[in-house]
Amino acid sequence: MSQHWWLLPCQPVDQAIQQEALERQRQLTKPAGSLGQLEQVAVQLAGLQGRLKPRVDQVWITIFAGDHGIVAEGVSPYPQAVTAQMLLNFVSGGAAISVLAGQLDAQLEVIDLGTATLTEDLPGVRHLHIGAGTANFAHTPAMTGAQGMLALQAGRDSVERAVAGGAQLFIGGEMGIGNTSAASALASVMLQCPVSDLTGPGTGLDAQGVSHKAQVLQRALDLHQLQGKDPLTQLLCFGGFEVAALAGAYLACAQEGLPALVDGFICTVAALVAVRLNPGCRDWLLFGHRGAEPGHRIALAALQAQPLLELGLRLGEGSGAALAVPLLRLACAIHGQMATFAEAAVADRPA
Amino acid sequence: MSQHWWLLPCQPVDQAIQQEALERQRQLTKPAGSLGQLEQVAVQLAGLQGRLKPRVDQVWITIFAGDHGIVAEGVSPYPQAVTAQMLLNFVSGGAAISVLAGQLDAQLEVIDLGTATLTEDLPGVRHLHIGAGTANFAHTPAMTGAQGMLALQAGRDSVERAVAGGAQLFIGGEMGIGNTSAASALASVMLQCPVSDLTGPGTGLDAQGVSHKAQVLQRALDLHQLQGKDPLTQLLCFGGFEVAALAGAYLACAQEGLPALVDGFICTVAALVAVRLNPGCRDWLLFGHRGAEPGHRIALAALQAQPLLELGLRLGEGSGAALAVPLLRLACAIHGQMATFAEAAVADRPA
Repeated sequence: MSQHWWLLPCQPVDQAIQQEALERQRQLTKPAGSLGQLEQVAVQLAGLQGRLKPRVDQVWITIFAGDHGIVAEGVSPYPQAVTAQMLLNFVSGGAAISVLAGQLDAQLEVIDLGTATLTEDLPGVRHLHIGAGTANFAHTPAMTGAQGMLALQAGRDSVERAVAGGAQLFIGGEMGIGNTSAASALASVMLQCPVSDLTGPGTGLDAQGVSHKAQVLQRALDLHQLQGKDPLTQLLCFGGFEVAALAGAYLACAQEGLPALVDGFICTVAALVAVRLNPGCRDWLLFGHRGAEPGHRIALAALQAQPLLELGLRLGEGSGAALAVPLLRLACAIHGQMATFAEAAVADRPA
Repeated sequence: MSQHWWLLPCQPVDQAIQQEALERQRQLTKPAGSLGQLEQVAVQLAGLQGRLKPRVDQVWITIFAGDHGIVAEGVSPYPQAVTAQMLLNFVSGGAAISVLAGQLDAQLEVIDLGTATLTEDLPGVRHLHIGAGTANFAHTPAMTGAQGMLALQAGRDSVERAVAGGAQLFIGGEMGIGNTSAASALASVMLQCPVSDLTGPGTGLDAQGVSHKAQVLQRALDLHQLQGKDPLTQLLCFGGFEVAALAGAYLACAQEGLPALVDGFICTVAALVAVRLNPGCRDWLLFGHRGAEPGHRIALAALQAQPLLELGLRLGEGSGAALAVPLLRLACAIHGQMATFAEAAVADRPA
């Protein structure tokens, strides 16, 4: 295994099939373009899957969890113990993503990359013990290089299990108290955008809390001075284990030829890392929703991403991507099953 | 049957259950409000269905089709024969809504209220023969009072079949070449809003076509002078048979206590008619999507409606509402099945 596996080429999109799918869309018994984004995603999936009539029946969801040293600075209203408590909730079926995975008949994998409070392993969770959470990036880089490699590889390994399991779509979710702080700092340094524009309430800070969080992040950014540095260094300094794992997963999806549906702010920042590391990765990403966190909008715009949903979500866990799965399935069903004008003897518009 | 059945009272919302559902949402293992609109619709459905854990497994979709005399003015690029051709396509399974109904396990009913070109009845379609399309409202009111009563009643009858069939959600769709013209004129006179703001490409006019359409509609509005008149008179003058049937359906849903999921521009204008006729109807309406037609945004705002989807749709047929059904189902599943903080032993935020 090369240390830089993520630089290996991504799979090409099948342009011929994509063109054929576009042509098919034009012949279906509806005004051209009248199904908007659903037409675009069906055509995109055709090109990615290399089949005229794509399918997303088999969905694989991996939740990557990790703790964050930055919470010592008071950037979240929730206690850090919630990360570990939610791991149990994911595998017990009580979390939102657990319910969604069940409803979608999706495979749900839960990976603990490194949490701070868990004293024993949980049945049904993959524990990787990369560290007891990241270091506090207010003082020192969040991860060592070795930790970053393990986290990136954890994402890749998950994708390889998804491919082996026959997945047609990969969703990465995340859990980690403090991870909007990591994502905001990382997005700020990558996009050279003021961190105050990228900082929001996360799971529930009030205005004063948001202001404090932005000050903490600004001080950290001033300390490390990583503007213009390579994305791997930026990731190691500010990212969480789960952010690195998500980036690794998106990169592996593109290399394996598995479409990935990106969730919320943290996942989108991880996608940004992935695309900065290997731009060919971008073709393989679809986007589930535009969330309530202000930085999400900016990160999506940087990726020229048009998510399917905008419902005011700010949960994470992959929930926004999971909620978009039925739209992808229905887009594929419409694309695959509708009659053409010729088949249905319906008049297309006069030329 | 009273001639004014639609003035009969609507069912009340169960406020106690709705409050209980809101309280349940606050106890589920996620930050309060983090599932955005999905929380709101689950709570709303609880109040409407009068059960703490609502369900929308049984969905009934009725397509109301009719032709429009206004097409003689050149307001649509499609030939009028498409209305009848699509009726066959709906029941043959080739239309977008046919595919969606199948995927959603929804009951699909197709009603021909009155088309201009059909020479014989089609198996699987209910033909009501209210007229060979409406009259051309560029010269004369689109419907007689008697035709309007029949069309309103057709919507009510469909809802009664849905209720008898055990439906938990009603979707009305429409088909009718020229019906964005009817909807734009009707919305203009009801909202006292310039018709040029409410006129768009419909299924595919170019800019010149849109300009011509707006001029045709402005002349018709000037001719009839119905600003400030009662909504029934406005409906009879500009509405299509399918618009009246949809309005009747929404009114009947509210009277029967069946939640209705409103589709695109034409359906939203019909909903506006229904709410003007009987304001208690509004509580029973949910909104599936915000479409590409410019008038849709204005009509939604007038109803203070927040649709679930915005995908650039402009098809009609109930397709945008159908696409939102999985979101309602997932919202209900999350609401009904997630663990509470107490059940999962997850720390809620410090008080």
